[in-house]
Amino acid sequence: MERREIVALQNLLKANDLIAEQINRRLTEEGVLLVDLISSPGAGKTTLIERTKDLLPDLKFAVINGDVQTDRDARRLKEKGIPAVQIATGGECHLEAHMVEQVLDDVLSERPDIIFIENVGNLICPSEFKLGEHLRVVLLSAPEGDDKPQKYPLAFLTSQVFLITKVDLVQHLPFDPERAKEDALSVNPKLRVIKVSALTGEGLDEWASLLREKLCELRK
Amino acid sequence: MERREIVALQNLLKANDLIAEQINRRLTEEGVLLVDLISSPGAGKTTLIERTKDLLPDLKFAVINGDVQTDRDARRLKEKGIPAVQIATGGECHLEAHMVEQVLDDVLSERPDIIFIENVGNLICPSEFKLGEHLRVVLLSAPEGDDKPQKYPLAFLTSQVFLITKVDLVQHLPFDPERAKEDALSVNPKLRVIKVSALTGEGLDEWASLLREKLCELRK
Repeated sequence: MERREIVALQNLLKANDLIAEQINRRLTEEGVLLVDLISSPGAGKTTLIERTKDLLPDLKFAVINGDVQTDRDARRLKEKGIPAVQIATGGECHLEAHMVEQVLDDVLSERPDIIFIENVGNLICPSEFKLGEHLRVVLLSAPEGDDKPQKYPLAFLTSQVFLITKVDLVQHLPFDPERAKEDALSVNPKLRVIKVSALTGEGLDEWASLLREKLCELRK
Repeated sequence: MERREIVALQNLLKANDLIAEQINRRLTEEGVLLVDLISSPGAGKTTLIERTKDLLPDLKFAVINGDVQTDRDARRLKEKGIPAVQIATGGECHLEAHMVEQVLDDVLSERPDIIFIENVGNLICPSEFKLGEHLRVVLLSAPEGDDKPQKYPLAFLTSQVFLITKVDLVQHLPFDPERAKEDALSVNPKLRVIKVSALTGEGLDEWASLLREKLCELRK
């Protein structure tokens, strides 16, 4: 990158962080937990939200879906009774805080306890942009391979939770969950790592408890 | 995006395309086929190259590996006896033509018949940047889901070949290869679609024949 480009990017990130802070402050005051989900396409973000709803029936969810094109995920969630607002980025590879800010009133009108942001399916670009989240979660599905955390370090470095998804497939794959965990912890030793399967339910209770705990901390 | 940003991006793409054309012209003259592989992380680009080498033992390969961090893929290929040059983008989410140009002499010194570019694992950003390739190939692995082509259309629109990878896993997944194919063809009706499995070998002969045919056309 040229110096001019770097300065432009730095300014963009600074402006983004200011808006992200405003979002974070507002939601903290209102006692609404904001969770940013980051992963490659098809790691299971939408399915995770659907299954989590079943485990936390007393909590109200709302979802902000970031997608390059189509509203397929938002439609899936609405069919499940979860309010979802679509942001079609039209080619942009990530969400930015101002995009979230624009839909926030709309989302809050559903009076949710937890707002999930389903970021654009991309393990690289979304990591650079804070969206005001209280919790950032990176998902890596078993079929993607246990060597990925160090190859895409920023997503793992900026997250607090690492969900290894689709672990029911491990028996059919050259994938070692322990190796994936070690690789991620070498990037960020503070990561909480949970192995989950939407099919068998493995790990989902632990994940749901974690969300409940974070919501409780936020509201105390 | 602001107008200023759009103009900057247009200029960047125009400059990129000029370098890409030079690369394409040079390789066409030298009779070397350049293939750009685009996919999400873990769709199987490195494994595909390894398996393709077994099927085309008389042809010499060289690989340009684009990665945000680590030289894991390049090391894997070298262990297999395939010359590989690493480009660590250091955070950038895609390769650009000038990066390829910088390593081209080095790669050509191996006197390859086919150069594969393993682009950064990302189904969005690499689609915007021509690299001088004769053939662009998009890979989508079965675990990523059959609804992805319309969600990430540019990769499918700018490719000539669509490889559905890891089809051996289909029996364990809610994945319909025909649906993925239809979804991709609705974006780009000219796509050649091949279902492949590195595990069972399904589709790899068709893929290898396609490469041989393209190389023959280039050299006639």
